[in-house]
Amino acid sequence: MSHSAGPTLRSVGTRPIRPDGIDKVTGCAVFGADFNLPDALHGAVLRSPFAHARILSIDISKALALSGVKAVVTASDLPEISGEQALTNDQPPDFRDMSANILARGKVLYDGHAIAAIAAVDEETASRALQLIDVEYEVLPHVIDVQQAMEPDAPVLHENMITQGITPAPERSSNIASRYEQVHGDVELGFSQADIILTEEFTTQPVHQAYIEPHACMARVASDGQTEIWCSSQGQFMVRAYCARLLDMPLSQIRVIPLEIGGGFGGKTTVYLEPLAVLLARRSGRPVKMEMSRADVFRATGPASGSYINMKIGARKDGTLVAAQGILCYQAGAFAGSPVRLGCMTAFAPYDIANVKMIGYDVVANRPKSAAYRAPGAPMAAFAAESLIDMLAQRLAMDPIELRIKNAVRQGARSASGFNFKEIGYLETLEAARVHPHYTAPLGKNQGRGVASGYWFNMGGQSSASITLNEDGTVLVATGNPDIGGSRASMALMAAEVLGIDVGLVRPQIVDTSSIAYSDLTGGSRVTFAVGMAVTQAATEMVAELQRRAATVWNVPVEQVLWRDGCAVANIEGNNERLSLSALAARAGKTGGPVAAHVSLDAQGAGPGFGTHICDVEVDPDTGRVTVLRYTAVQDVGKAVHPSYVEGQLQGGAAQGIGWALNEAYLYDENGAQLNPGFLDYRIPVASDLPMIDTVLVEVPNPRHPFGVRGVGEVPIIPPLGAVANAVSRASGARHVDLPMCPPAVLKAMQRAARKSR
Amino acid sequence: MSHSAGPTLRSVGTRPIRPDGIDKVTGCAVFGADFNLPDALHGAVLRSPFAHARILSIDISKALALSGVKAVVTASDLPEISGEQALTNDQPPDFRDMSANILARGKVLYDGHAIAAIAAVDEETASRALQLIDVEYEVLPHVIDVQQAMEPDAPVLHENMITQGITPAPERSSNIASRYEQVHGDVELGFSQADIILTEEFTTQPVHQAYIEPHACMARVASDGQTEIWCSSQGQFMVRAYCARLLDMPLSQIRVIPLEIGGGFGGKTTVYLEPLAVLLARRSGRPVKMEMSRADVFRATGPASGSYINMKIGARKDGTLVAAQGILCYQAGAFAGSPVRLGCMTAFAPYDIANVKMIGYDVVANRPKSAAYRAPGAPMAAFAAESLIDMLAQRLAMDPIELRIKNAVRQGARSASGFNFKEIGYLETLEAARVHPHYTAPLGKNQGRGVASGYWFNMGGQSSASITLNEDGTVLVATGNPDIGGSRASMALMAAEVLGIDVGLVRPQIVDTSSIAYSDLTGGSRVTFAVGMAVTQAATEMVAELQRRAATVWNVPVEQVLWRDGCAVANIEGNNERLSLSALAARAGKTGGPVAAHVSLDAQGAGPGFGTHICDVEVDPDTGRVTVLRYTAVQDVGKAVHPSYVEGQLQGGAAQGIGWALNEAYLYDENGAQLNPGFLDYRIPVASDLPMIDTVLVEVPNPRHPFGVRGVGEVPIIPPLGAVANAVSRASGARHVDLPMCPPAVLKAMQRAARKSR
Repeated sequence: MSHSAGPTLRSVGTRPIRPDGIDKVTGCAVFGADFNLPDALHGAVLRSPFAHARILSIDISKALALSGVKAVVTASDLPEISGEQALTNDQPPDFRDMSANILARGKVLYDGHAIAAIAAVDEETASRALQLIDVEYEVLPHVIDVQQAMEPDAPVLHENMITQGITPAPERSSNIASRYEQVHGDVELGFSQADIILTEEFTTQPVHQAYIEPHACMARVASDGQTEIWCSSQGQFMVRAYCARLLDMPLSQIRVIPLEIGGGFGGKTTVYLEPLAVLLARRSGRPVKMEMSRADVFRATGPASGSYINMKIGARKDGTLVAAQGILCYQAGAFAGSPVRLGCMTAFAPYDIANVKMIGYDVVANRPKSAAYRAPGAPMAAFAAESLIDMLAQRLAMDPIELRIKNAVRQGARSASGFNFKEIGYLETLEAARVHPHYTAPLGKNQGRGVASGYWFNMGGQSSASITLNEDGTVLVATGNPDIGGSRASMALMAAEVLGIDVGLVRPQIVDTSSIAYSDLTGGSRVTFAVGMAVTQAATEMVAELQRRAATVWNVPVEQVLWRDGCAVANIEGNNERLSLSALAARAGKTGGPVAAHVSLDAQGAGPGFGTHICDVEVDPDTGRVTVLRYTAVQDVGKAVHPSYVEGQLQGGAAQGIGWALNEAYLYDENGAQLNPGFLDYRIPVASDLPMIDTVLVEVPNPRHPFGVRGVGEVPIIPPLGAVANAVSRASGARHVDLPMCPPAVLKAMQRAARKSR
Repeated sequence: MSHSAGPTLRSVGTRPIRPDGIDKVTGCAVFGADFNLPDALHGAVLRSPFAHARILSIDISKALALSGVKAVVTASDLPEISGEQALTNDQPPDFRDMSANILARGKVLYDGHAIAAIAAVDEETASRALQLIDVEYEVLPHVIDVQQAMEPDAPVLHENMITQGITPAPERSSNIASRYEQVHGDVELGFSQADIILTEEFTTQPVHQAYIEPHACMARVASDGQTEIWCSSQGQFMVRAYCARLLDMPLSQIRVIPLEIGGGFGGKTTVYLEPLAVLLARRSGRPVKMEMSRADVFRATGPASGSYINMKIGARKDGTLVAAQGILCYQAGAFAGSPVRLGCMTAFAPYDIANVKMIGYDVVANRPKSAAYRAPGAPMAAFAAESLIDMLAQRLAMDPIELRIKNAVRQGARSASGFNFKEIGYLETLEAARVHPHYTAPLGKNQGRGVASGYWFNMGGQSSASITLNEDGTVLVATGNPDIGGSRASMALMAAEVLGIDVGLVRPQIVDTSSIAYSDLTGGSRVTFAVGMAVTQAATEMVAELQRRAATVWNVPVEQVLWRDGCAVANIEGNNERLSLSALAARAGKTGGPVAAHVSLDAQGAGPGFGTHICDVEVDPDTGRVTVLRYTAVQDVGKAVHPSYVEGQLQGGAAQGIGWALNEAYLYDENGAQLNPGFLDYRIPVASDLPMIDTVLVEVPNPRHPFGVRGVGEVPIIPPLGAVANAVSRASGARHVDLPMCPPAVLKAMQRAARKSR
């Protein structure tokens, strides 16, 4: 399938060399830690050794007295956050919590919680100074697990936290920050109509985004407060807005210069070090550089939520789903704000089920505050839902793809989550999966094949783009969104397409917060769609301006100027004159000045995304070790602007989902201290762990975008948990409901199943 | 006088704290040499010890073999420059010459001429490597002085240079690059009608712009050729265009990030180190930093041209000027391109003279290539013209201001240079000078008072501005022009004025070549006028957009929304609703996305600038030492946007002109080597040398600019040469026609005059 709404495309859909590729593979790209300023101080953070403790006192006097120490800050140096919320999002973060996460106020809530920050002339002095800070603690009982945290007698993290979303409000505080309920139809009636009802409990563990680049930043503050921040993040405007809010500064006083980002996956949609670096720079009068170690990243930056899910589906004998219900308990970490609502909304979104009720609990515990991770909240919910559907297929002896096709939400239908989907391609992904050679390839002994699907909203939002025509006819495309998944390439391709020129003439650039209008952060699979829309509109405006310039040169009405293949063409009887882009560029100074186009918009109508994955595994019956033999990811991508990048997104998402399914987990000792804060012990899949992941790009164009683009980055992490679990369950003959399916767990589940079947 | 074309202004014309002031005075601003990158190599340049020599061979092998040396380049590494010229200017520079100035090709043409550049791991290695480069020279006879260079038997610098502008073309090459002629009326007839004819010869010396910051840059080149240049210059787009041209690169491959500039005065309108740094970075694969020493700056960057001028005026007995004639010989340095044409055009521009003939010669000699310096070409020509007018006043026993008023070009009149001036304020400056207390203050023994005027075109040109509204209602104004004279402040003031908000809410920023559309360089006194026009238009567009947003919120036609004092106001019977800028900013996301406005334009109609200066000096009859006792600069500035900056421009220009008049000169030994390449021996005026310079801002609005702005930066360097010389001449009783008027020269002129009068 391909984009059918327009003429043949010459750039969009091709695979040119990535504009940032050589820079990155040769080590030239400047990532967070690569940026230095003369005279910069070294910043360091004192972190809590306890999972839960009251801070009785902090004495910084000895640290401050150490020669070479230029500034020390604690929570008392952060302003009190007033009640209003940030202006940039529909659901802004809680800045009081964010402030208390950045520097603990009164209590430390997890192992690694920041307590103080210091700036010194070098790293050695900084770490000696950290040891000179005296903190007096009263250690409190702690709770790590989400179910235990919900117990009535669990240690309570926030004394004043009353569960939201329950009427009447509970009288005493608990670790349940909020309850969310979503109802569609009548679930009790639905289950009463079911021939088969399946109920199961699932657990998943918090997993880290595991970006390769630890957080790093540099801040410089002039004596008049003018502040510059260089950092790697998923949004320079996010960093600016959050720092302004946390430090009570006007936005105009902060300029954030984005550096290259070495992976974010949602984990860099918030700030940790930046406000500290600004505070220290302000206090010391010198630039301050801060970098996290890998251990800091694991101990103090957001993983995805862990979850406990109780889920139930009801179906008729023919496989028609009639009811679904879920209770989702998501671990927010030390502060409220898990994506449980998104889990409730997405779990059954691919299906046309008349009666659905989802209840979500957002639960705090003594772990690092969770952060967004690719399709936040969806993978664990889909794991539960897709496992149940696989169990249903087994019970009915139906082909699992057939069962999904039977219930799949179709164009125009209302999904189980209450959405009225218009142009969507879920069915097309199922059909492409069914006919894929992978799906009918033979399986050997101890091998199994799993299938699972996934849905993600995809987002639009506020986006800005500037296109300028250089004097020599080359073109610059500037946007305000860090390139985390190939947006430089896709922006250049879309601009080249509209302008009708070779993409090699177009240079994409990511610019700072003073150099372009506001843009929402890079996330939610929104950039190719929304920023791409700003770019295509700007390119269209530039073409119109170039037509006007050509009309000026030829002294004809602009209506008589066409734009063809990068040239203005006189549409006049007997006149075939052409003016190329570079000829018009050379004349810009004489025809009205520089040619540029700028668009800021709020993009609506990001197309919903669906994917279906097939996974083959072999389970070693003696050790429980799971080997992924073959993996195919099928996804409706709308229109693949740069197909290599899109395939890379599908492969990367699948790899991360496989890691989530099989290996990744945080280990804690009895005191609540993390035992595995490093890549040696926190095991993400490496190349030798995985087969080449095959991809199938289904292209059902999104009618709301000029080239049919829909977001692609998040869907591919959703199906793998279910696909792998279904494969392992079928290979091992035991249903696996707890992640990760590491060898001991798989072995245990197989032994339990064997006992049951005896 | 003040701006009368509109309502009272609340921001324009005030004196807020400079946005860049604190940064600069506290040493926080990042100038060229302050910028560093990890792993950067140290670049160094081998310079010629000879004023004129053929390069027989260059052997770089020993230098390359030195451990730590990463790259060596010579002229053979620079591409041949093709015939086409740059696209950005009406009169582009000669890039072949520029290339040969950056690295000598075949011959060295002056002491300090660059021959090779090397990049090494540190400064010591770099300077050792320079000594290992073997250059075989054939030393040639040289010529330094402009009149000597014009002699038929002078050593010829360029074997193929035939004088342009002479018909038929001369048969043999000479050092005269071109002849320029400008005729207005019939000068022979004019002189025949004159009662008094005065003829005099004048000489001025090359003087350096003497910016405090030496040239410095950093270049980084990725393996795919993508190039970043950080440098201090008068135009990031100039640096980009020139490097692209010299290195044969597309503009899209170069990003120039402007650093703070520590003075330019025209001397940073070209490139010296930047192309070398790029070549070395490309060759070595590492960033390369290059800095000039002060001696490098004096030996190898452009001073203003020295001149020999033969000038003649004719007047009636009543003082009416009837004819003027000049032969101007300007020293271009080693390559053609002095501003002699501008000297011819400006010398008599303030006067209404029916018959004028000006002839200019552009002459090369074995000195560094001249560069633009504040009102290029005008000060030396005005020195001659204003001296003659003072001599005429003395001859006629007329007050020198009265004589000027009698002949001053008036609104609508045609000037001696053939210009038809519209709204101008020359007469107003003369009248303000005449009534200034300074002009009638008593003078003591050995004291004299000089008056002189000056004219400068002022320029417009291509300019871009972006204004973005932050989420909290603060505003960013981004432009593409380095701030050399307070443009950050003036842009912020103009934006605040149009938006109706406090200037403290507006943050001006200078952004890189990827972050804004093309802008001509900062020079020609064009920025406040032309870029200011882009800023005011963008602010006006933003107001219109904010009115649309308010109309959306109120659901009324946009015609019913007014803009008053930074607020949208409903112009509806019985409805007094208001929405402030910050309220509209907070709603931007819900009313259509980010609010921003961008304007690129080619500004026309910069108002001509005129100034009149009064100078009192005392001459020590025994030593010839001149002390400036009092100095007043009067100028028509159109509208002073930030009066403190405008006064600073007048004071700075006067100070530089006084230095030019009294002390500054290059000294050469018999081999053509510079003897005084440093501030100890090249003496610019320091604070203790000068009185406080008084300023009078005359405001005759320029009707082509919304606030009446005209350029102010260049005019004030034009009158001082004549004003000081006239004062010294009157104080000493001897006419001084040779600059600088250093004590020995003054003494000599006085002795000669004494002999003559005996």
